[in-house]
Amino acid sequence: MLRHSTKLFVNLERAAGLGASSASASSAGTGSFIPKQSDTMTSSTTPSYQKSLTLDNMCPTVRTAQYAVRGELVIRAEKLVSTLDRQKNEGIKLLPFEEIVYCNIGNPQQLKQKPLSFFRQVVALCECPELLESPHIDKIFPADAIARARALLASVGNTGAYSGSQGIASVLRSVAKFIEKRDGYPADPESIFLTDGASVAVQRILRLLIRDRSDGILIPIPQYPLYSATIELYGGSQLGYYLNEEAGWKMEIPELERSYNDAKEKGITPRALVIINPGNPTGQTLDAANMSDIVQFCHQKRLVLLADEVYQENVYSENKPFVSFKKVVKDLGTKVEGLEMVSFHSVSKGFVGECGKRGGYMELFGISPEVKSEIYKLSSIGLCPNVIGQLVVDLMVNPPQEGEASHKQYIEERDAIYNSLKRRANLLATALNSLEGVTCNAPEGAMYAFPQIRLPPKAVEEAKQNGKQPDAHYCIQLLEATGICVVPGSGFGQRDGTYHFRTTFLPSEQAIEGVCKKVADFHKAFMAKYK
Amino acid sequence: MLRHSTKLFVNLERAAGLGASSASASSAGTGSFIPKQSDTMTSSTTPSYQKSLTLDNMCPTVRTAQYAVRGELVIRAEKLVSTLDRQKNEGIKLLPFEEIVYCNIGNPQQLKQKPLSFFRQVVALCECPELLESPHIDKIFPADAIARARALLASVGNTGAYSGSQGIASVLRSVAKFIEKRDGYPADPESIFLTDGASVAVQRILRLLIRDRSDGILIPIPQYPLYSATIELYGGSQLGYYLNEEAGWKMEIPELERSYNDAKEKGITPRALVIINPGNPTGQTLDAANMSDIVQFCHQKRLVLLADEVYQENVYSENKPFVSFKKVVKDLGTKVEGLEMVSFHSVSKGFVGECGKRGGYMELFGISPEVKSEIYKLSSIGLCPNVIGQLVVDLMVNPPQEGEASHKQYIEERDAIYNSLKRRANLLATALNSLEGVTCNAPEGAMYAFPQIRLPPKAVEEAKQNGKQPDAHYCIQLLEATGICVVPGSGFGQRDGTYHFRTTFLPSEQAIEGVCKKVADFHKAFMAKYK
Repeated sequence: MLRHSTKLFVNLERAAGLGASSASASSAGTGSFIPKQSDTMTSSTTPSYQKSLTLDNMCPTVRTAQYAVRGELVIRAEKLVSTLDRQKNEGIKLLPFEEIVYCNIGNPQQLKQKPLSFFRQVVALCECPELLESPHIDKIFPADAIARARALLASVGNTGAYSGSQGIASVLRSVAKFIEKRDGYPADPESIFLTDGASVAVQRILRLLIRDRSDGILIPIPQYPLYSATIELYGGSQLGYYLNEEAGWKMEIPELERSYNDAKEKGITPRALVIINPGNPTGQTLDAANMSDIVQFCHQKRLVLLADEVYQENVYSENKPFVSFKKVVKDLGTKVEGLEMVSFHSVSKGFVGECGKRGGYMELFGISPEVKSEIYKLSSIGLCPNVIGQLVVDLMVNPPQEGEASHKQYIEERDAIYNSLKRRANLLATALNSLEGVTCNAPEGAMYAFPQIRLPPKAVEEAKQNGKQPDAHYCIQLLEATGICVVPGSGFGQRDGTYHFRTTFLPSEQAIEGVCKKVADFHKAFMAKYK
Repeated sequence: MLRHSTKLFVNLERAAGLGASSASASSAGTGSFIPKQSDTMTSSTTPSYQKSLTLDNMCPTVRTAQYAVRGELVIRAEKLVSTLDRQKNEGIKLLPFEEIVYCNIGNPQQLKQKPLSFFRQVVALCECPELLESPHIDKIFPADAIARARALLASVGNTGAYSGSQGIASVLRSVAKFIEKRDGYPADPESIFLTDGASVAVQRILRLLIRDRSDGILIPIPQYPLYSATIELYGGSQLGYYLNEEAGWKMEIPELERSYNDAKEKGITPRALVIINPGNPTGQTLDAANMSDIVQFCHQKRLVLLADEVYQENVYSENKPFVSFKKVVKDLGTKVEGLEMVSFHSVSKGFVGECGKRGGYMELFGISPEVKSEIYKLSSIGLCPNVIGQLVVDLMVNPPQEGEASHKQYIEERDAIYNSLKRRANLLATALNSLEGVTCNAPEGAMYAFPQIRLPPKAVEEAKQNGKQPDAHYCIQLLEATGICVVPGSGFGQRDGTYHFRTTFLPSEQAIEGVCKKVADFHKAFMAKYK
């Protein structure tokens, strides 16, 4: 009996997540992770025992939080992977494509982006210091990688030990130097926290800001769903401000005012303003004048400014270089004295693209020392960020310098990645704009295009009948026709009645034209089907 | 003005956390991270701007949560480090010791425990696959390390890519095989989640279980403060059950009943029972008969069993081998059908001791598929556990096998660490038991001793006058006299009127006798002072 029930349980679990089952997904709504339940099966496994932990008695905000980037579409895609495995192993044609192309998430090395050689050499040496003693090592690795590893080990000690809760002191100093050089203003190592990727850092700050539904956080619409998911999880209120799609996803002060005032009228206290620059999913970059207005708005309204700057190296437009909010605040000087700001950065994006390392940091600015102590405490409960991720942060902010053995190779690798991303961004935007009913702002930054798709009324109708968001309906069909996995705009938020999807432009230079062609063919067929 | 205010801010921050200041700490209570505020300074930095985020308007449960393992004592110790630096650099005697000995946390590699060679070789190769192409590599690394790295890379792809939210599929399979072999019962890879250390896993499950103060979690007293901190952070209720110190920290069913019934009377629903086996901070191991009773208690009361088994390789008593709760549940069979359990494991403990890698896993058992989907969603919001940590989990559960090139070295390294820990555990317990008014159960497992110290009434009185817990008063004096950093029992919980401290037995074999002698000398002087 027990063995039997275990087997049933496994199958249900497959339907829920990891996915070796070939049954089609059955979630009820966009971005929902909750599989349709088979009550018969559940009750047959435990005839006499009522489960203690159920959907009905668990923390309700866990259930209501949604995270579309790894939502329904990805779970479907993972199921298709096992069908593709069968197709390959059994030599029978089950699907009209050979592979899943994951454009749902900014994960460049999954799509064959090569890691920066110097970074990996140094990490390997730090991980296995016996390599440094090998008489062969100078034939394998360049001298500066060896020297860097020795220097890092001298300050870190051992990658197997917990570091301090805030991070390794020497890495904090490296980050501060990087910020100083970037902005031309001093930075204090003691105001920096290293974290397992930027997501953890964002969550830590939001945790402090949110007490209950009466605390609101201003977030862009569209936004990266880490923000909406976390605000919901912590029981706060999302205060959306719309980016102006017609003006290249511009951030406009009157719209911020509107959102702020709407919240106040509802009795909600706006506590912080989230800005993602360059934008995710929208790919725009802010100009310095706009940023100056935003900072002054925050100061005037006493909002903590949360500057998500993880795409700071992914800027493609010549005439709008990246400017940090720290610099803008410092430039404004006494005008915005006392402003509270936290900025976030990560090793996952840019040309580094080391997502799997989970490295990141946040810089506190103007945050009171006693609040900082609370952030320190929250960090200490998780003990410390992973040490390898911390080392990769150090390498990101302190790459090989001119005159060092690895400098040339580093520059070549960096530029190759950057220039290719730029080409692919343009290629994708052009391809999307050539489609009927599709418009796409050219990505100025980040790793994403966020095209608007004007869906035929019949498609919208059919989606609604199936209990789906219309753009999810489109994306599911795209996935099932082509293997290309994108995320519906409804997962990021959008103006009512508009539909979008987010796609990365990370498929390799060899692959991206094929991806564009497949999307175009699918789109034409979709439009014809619902005409 | 701005430059000036920044400087003031920095000094305040120092006092709050990282600690380069030589000023003595000024926290008001044990384990408190909140530095005494200088209102003058705060207001002088921002004459016209009222901070938006303050202690008074932040999430209140962040403020009330306490985590003593990195609490007041450690912050003091970090300040002493900079005094020691001055002592060394300026050649003047400022403190009666030369170094801080961190016995506050189970961080073996910080105290010079050598990592297992095979693990580090494989990780270095996975991190830098160009090494595999080097003609010199087989002169540097053994053949099985090279083969293992190739196999891992074939399944992982690239350490720089996000993995699936639940973890790398092949690592999940390795963990399942390990559990099967350990327990003699099948394990399902799809019920396993890899995590950034076990702490994250514990927090994820507690997040689901706690809605508000009416949800209670049974935790041992004394307990590891991850539990108390997290339950408080999530706004739940801690339901302590006392371990019986006189009976070797035994876990007794009547005491569980008492705690359960007390909660019910207060209108609190007990939802889960936390068991730490081997115990932290108490070092006891449970016998199988006791475990069987506990499991049946959980089943009868419909409690989710949370089995913290991170010290499963740290078992030192010959006649009480480690038995997993999974095995006990499976042995009981239909008697406890439907029971819900989550067990936790980590690469930070045992003889692996790779704390800095932040690798761990949890196995769900009997958890409903729809609740599992919610766990999956929570995991996906953080994207994925760090990939190197996942690889170290794989190596922990699948070390070199007999007949492979590294097997002999692996066994030698493993046994040397294990045997040394066992010797040090005994040595420390004997030394503590020889002190006036001190009793210490011999550690059967884990990495800690938790002696009871009977403090003279005068010492208790002085502590209370200073607003300190008496055991914190003792530990602070120990730190300031010897540089040895331990954690007061009050950070873990203890019966009223009893006092303890937790110390690891991780100082090296060369160092531990010196540590014992210093503690003994300090203790004698302390007892004489307050007689």
